[in-house]
Amino acid sequence: MDFRGQDILSTDQFDKATLRNLFEEATRMEDVLKKGHSDLLKGKVLATLFFEPSTRTRFSFETAMLRLGGRVISNADMLKTSSSKKQETLFDTGKVVSQMADAIAMRHPEAGSVAKFAEGSDVPVLNAGDGAGSHPTQGLLDLYTIWKEKGTLDGLTIGIIGDLKYGRVPHSQCGFLKHFDVNFVFVSPEALKMPRKIVDDLMSQGRSIIEVDSLADHIGEMDVISMTRIQEERFESKSEYKKYAGSYVLDKNLMNKAKEDSIIIHPLPRVDEISTEVDEDPRAKYFEQVKNGVALRMALLSLVLS
Amino acid sequence: MDFRGQDILSTDQFDKATLRNLFEEATRMEDVLKKGHSDLLKGKVLATLFFEPSTRTRFSFETAMLRLGGRVISNADMLKTSSSKKQETLFDTGKVVSQMADAIAMRHPEAGSVAKFAEGSDVPVLNAGDGAGSHPTQGLLDLYTIWKEKGTLDGLTIGIIGDLKYGRVPHSQCGFLKHFDVNFVFVSPEALKMPRKIVDDLMSQGRSIIEVDSLADHIGEMDVISMTRIQEERFESKSEYKKYAGSYVLDKNLMNKAKEDSIIIHPLPRVDEISTEVDEDPRAKYFEQVKNGVALRMALLSLVLS
Amino acid sequence: MDFRGQDILSTDQFDKATLRNLFEEATRMEDVLKKGHSDLLKGKVLATLFFEPSTRTRFSFETAMLRLGGRVISNADMLKTSSSKKQETLFDTGKVVSQMADAIAMRHPEAGSVAKFAEGSDVPVLNAGDGAGSHPTQGLLDLYTIWKEKGTLDGLTIGIIGDLKYGRVPHSQCGFLKHFDVNFVFVSPEALKMPRKIVDDLMSQGRSIIEVDSLADHIGEMDVISMTRIQEERFESKSEYKKYAGSYVLDKNLMNKAKEDSIIIHPLPRVDEISTEVDEDPRAKYFEQVKNGVALRMALLSLVLS
Repeated sequence: MDFRGQDILSTDQFDKATLRNLFEEATRMEDVLKKGHSDLLKGKVLATLFFEPSTRTRFSFETAMLRLGGRVISNADMLKTSSSKKQETLFDTGKVVSQMADAIAMRHPEAGSVAKFAEGSDVPVLNAGDGAGSHPTQGLLDLYTIWKEKGTLDGLTIGIIGDLKYGRVPHSQCGFLKHFDVNFVFVSPEALKMPRKIVDDLMSQGRSIIEVDSLADHIGEMDVISMTRIQEERFESKSEYKKYAGSYVLDKNLMNKAKEDSIIIHPLPRVDEISTEVDEDPRAKYFEQVKNGVALRMALLSLVLS
Repeated sequence: MDFRGQDILSTDQFDKATLRNLFEEATRMEDVLKKGHSDLLKGKVLATLFFEPSTRTRFSFETAMLRLGGRVISNADMLKTSSSKKQETLFDTGKVVSQMADAIAMRHPEAGSVAKFAEGSDVPVLNAGDGAGSHPTQGLLDLYTIWKEKGTLDGLTIGIIGDLKYGRVPHSQCGFLKHFDVNFVFVSPEALKMPRKIVDDLMSQGRSIIEVDSLADHIGEMDVISMTRIQEERFESKSEYKKYAGSYVLDKNLMNKAKEDSIIIHPLPRVDEISTEVDEDPRAKYFEQVKNGVALRMALLSLVLS
Repeated sequence: MDFRGQDILSTDQFDKATLRNLFEEATRMEDVLKKGHSDLLKGKVLATLFFEPSTRTRFSFETAMLRLGGRVISNADMLKTSSSKKQETLFDTGKVVSQMADAIAMRHPEAGSVAKFAEGSDVPVLNAGDGAGSHPTQGLLDLYTIWKEKGTLDGLTIGIIGDLKYGRVPHSQCGFLKHFDVNFVFVSPEALKMPRKIVDDLMSQGRSIIEVDSLADHIGEMDVISMTRIQEERFESKSEYKKYAGSYVLDKNLMNKAKEDSIIIHPLPRVDEISTEVDEDPRAKYFEQVKNGVALRMALLSLVLS
């Protein structure tokens, strides 16, 4: 894929070669971060348009743009502070904002809305999450973190733990990981297993998959421990929730069973699924992941705008 | 008028020579936009202070400042997030903010409030709309769009369509257009005709005016088709509203009767008064108008601050 | 104190030598302000994270950063627009935001919260006010204004007027002023006297203190007239409030009794405790104080980040 001028809307746009190019660009961006900044995008303006607030994602896009010498205009809470109240279509809003910016990072609570907006826009639109839809830059930074820490993705055993049925993060990760020769360990309560469609899709590409409900029994096999939150509201009863939630608290005891060179990733915010005592563990990469996200978004902006 | 250090508060400040100077500066700014940016206002800070949210107007001012190398501090929703709750006067707020910025773009829901604020301010204040009061930069960008597209304003027949009684945009357009040798076609329902005072003012300057209620019958005479929204709440009954609103939907059929070299302008957002099928028509200039607005505001900032 | 990499959390961190260094740096920053800007912090990013809105304090930090060539990412109303709803700890939020910025200015309604946040952060945190806790940069700019206007702090008689019992500003001023050879005149209603602990602390350092309830009787002794608001809700009855509030309206009459070379400071916003007729008095420094606040914050950012 040639990134120039492209919208970044969904995981489907990325194949193995594209991901490798992106990660290599992100590595170059780490050098820019070390130096402090670059003038690569001097004179370019990014609009961040968040129809649903998300400080960390917005900050990440904005910092990425600023570190590359660009500038930012921002609406952090568009539904509350805009003429979207005046019933303007997303197409029109996209057309209008694109007259004032060189690229737009947009977030919206409804799946599909970013694509509608992008149809109107005359400049590249980067999906910063659209509800139950896609959040491609989060998935990309998860993969980049693995690639950066392990040097490769092929041959790894990757455990994905939590609510695999509804979780946007696990689905997005699988959408990217399917391009690599990865062994999956899906850890979830029976009621929250990975959707059949995703499992079949991975199987058809020859991936090895095991589906289990105990993290303790399988953590020792994992090169990557991808933790996600289990949300209480998915369960029929509080006791049912507690039965499973308890087993997926990653603590020192569990980490004693994990490989020496494994890594832990998590999209954050965490509630209690990773004990704070694990923060000191050198295998914990979930805060570094945030920094990796800046480099990854710098890479996307640089490829799309230059 | 020498713009340096001036507040831009109302249409009354502009005469024909001033408007021409401003439009010529805006033309120069289009070159800056083509190049991407300038360092003309490097080191200057613009505060955007919106006591009422308006993303498009705020973005336009902010992009204009950033494209000129300046920086921006911003409050997008001042009434909700400020010590205006603590009963500070607009005079004091103006005085305080002007200690921290080189210019201030301010919007407020109450007519006259921007002028009160400007009295306190030690730096130039640009009115970004004060309720039923003035919104001079909107009117200026409307005129600039006509001037840019037609090369002149004198000699044109300009149709203004919609709610001419209450609409701030039609009033503001007339406030600027009165300086030019323009023929007006005012199209509105009987109940929403242009205020007598404005008509008389234009007449006294020798302008030709016709007031009609059918757009179809008169669109063929217009060089400029200035569409505005008709707001349902102005009418006594829904049926009364629908009677007129229906006739002012600009669609392909109507555009077939319009001049080949006419142009359509609209302040946006539109609801349904311009059919989306018209967007492809080369005479449709309402999205380009947004870009023209950035150039126009760059011109104002450059003239006021340099 | 070596400022590099330090959090600025409370008044206790500053001794006399540190204050002098800071004020000298602020003086250098006034030159930068006169020139317009500097590239000292080019490539650095400041995050302003306000869990409670405060436009003037936020603008001051942001302008300070921008004038030094740095960039800003901002959340003006964090409690309404963030995943703090998702129960993330302040420690985690601090850790996360510090991956994306080089320094963080944070405000929060709860005392102690900025310190918790700073524990998580990997970059310097500047306290921009934490409820009933500390607001060190306000106190610092008060002192800097005196130092700048009077050339020294030692030997001055400083009147502090208003609600001395609950007011954060008077407490913060005393926290810094205790390092200097200052004579205090505390003016308050009996019910709102300075807490014994603070008076004793100052006494133990050999400071001279008088506590009175009449401003008129003592304004003539003051080199510095530090006005603060008296808040009605502190009093048991409206009539009790009015009895005192009335005597602390600084007007022309009162200023006729003040020293020729005295100065008036006030943290703003004011309600009616300083009559607007005093604004023209050359001794009124409360608006200039805002500009001094920018220089002071530039000094802090420059010392902490370079």
